[in-house]
Amino acid sequence: MRMGELSHRSGVPIPTIRFYLREGLLAAGELTSPNQGSYGEDHVRRLKLIRALVEIGGLSVAKARAVLDHLGSSGADELGVLGTVQFALAARRESEPDEASQLAASDVRRLMARHGWDNCADNPATADLIDVVAVLHRLGQHDVLALLDGYARAARALAESEVELVDNRTALEDRAEGVVVISVLGDALLAALRRLAQETLMVRRLGRRNGTVTAASKAPG
Amino acid sequence: MRMGELSHRSGVPIPTIRFYLREGLLAAGELTSPNQGSYGEDHVRRLKLIRALVEIGGLSVAKARAVLDHLGSSGADELGVLGTVQFALAARRESEPDEASQLAASDVRRLMARHGWDNCADNPATADLIDVVAVLHRLGQHDVLALLDGYARAARALAESEVELVDNRTALEDRAEGVVVISVLGDALLAALRRLAQETLMVRRLGRRNGTVTAASKAPG
Repeated sequence: MRMGELSHRSGVPIPTIRFYLREGLLAAGELTSPNQGSYGEDHVRRLKLIRALVEIGGLSVAKARAVLDHLGSSGADELGVLGTVQFALAARRESEPDEASQLAASDVRRLMARHGWDNCADNPATADLIDVVAVLHRLGQHDVLALLDGYARAARALAESEVELVDNRTALEDRAEGVVVISVLGDALLAALRRLAQETLMVRRLGRRNGTVTAASKAPG
Repeated sequence: MRMGELSHRSGVPIPTIRFYLREGLLAAGELTSPNQGSYGEDHVRRLKLIRALVEIGGLSVAKARAVLDHLGSSGADELGVLGTVQFALAARRESEPDEASQLAASDVRRLMARHGWDNCADNPATADLIDVVAVLHRLGQHDVLALLDGYARAARALAESEVELVDNRTALEDRAEGVVVISVLGDALLAALRRLAQETLMVRRLGRRNGTVTAASKAPG
């Protein structure tokens, strides 16, 4: 198909497709004339995946390219792809060590030992987790810290169903793509579902307590 | 205390504090001379909260101000704050309606009915959820769609412990702040914990299947 149809099928505007081609996120089409390429189903699929990484996952073009390169390389395995996408999604904040961050590092080390995650010390998510726990210490939110084990158990249950899903897929390419999709879209799914659950439960419980269930719970500010 | 000590205590550099003062995120200090203010514990606490919203939550200055304004206003209630923070965290992507987004809207409507979330139709998280589900349809990831109910149950269990936590707090100000902290930091906590669980379970299961547990699972690319 030509560029116009590729744009129509993928929902990605032509200038954006050209940008992705220049940036190496999308392989060039087969040249049918000096300035016209022909594109296939792989291009449509790849464009949809790029959009998911960039728009839902918030990945930079450079990070999306790193993930896609790994996905496309021969011999790509799920674990290699998992590592790449986890590094791409990591927040990597720079923070100066203080008392709160030391407390947090110790909390996280113990939490990881309790849940059998001892081998993940060099996973960038460990540093992200320490950062967030340090903020909770700085804000004195000790009751929120007490929720961590419950969050960890929930995360484990979700990860179990996700690994099951990847392992039920046959083709190596589909397995690796599953890892990417679950990593990137899973965060967004879970965040949205949590907000709906929070609204429902808070309106029910706190609204009853306050004696009113008002539209204020939905007003933007 | 003076600006220098406020910076030291909060970990926020002086130019950043000046910026937050100009932007109205932080109340002015009590003037002790024409160009010197005096700051209190409230300022330290507020600065730490601003950092959490901006650095962990990724909120813009405008969105952080909307949340903080609501938190600081007299008569602030948890539900009003919840609405404000949920609107601030919403992705609000612009997307053109297509077949996938119609399918997604119908999926999400049914999911919300199954989980008793019918009253959340105008929560911005509903639109976010529809967007992500539409992407899953476009990518043909039907097995991932089948995970949605499990995610929703997990989200509900987490929200229950979160509402419990807020309701166990006494002061209205602490309750409202709890809503903000849980909303903003909860996403980051859960995302990090999910990655650790994913690494552990995938390395264990897929690594065994592939016959190797290699450092490749952690290499950046």
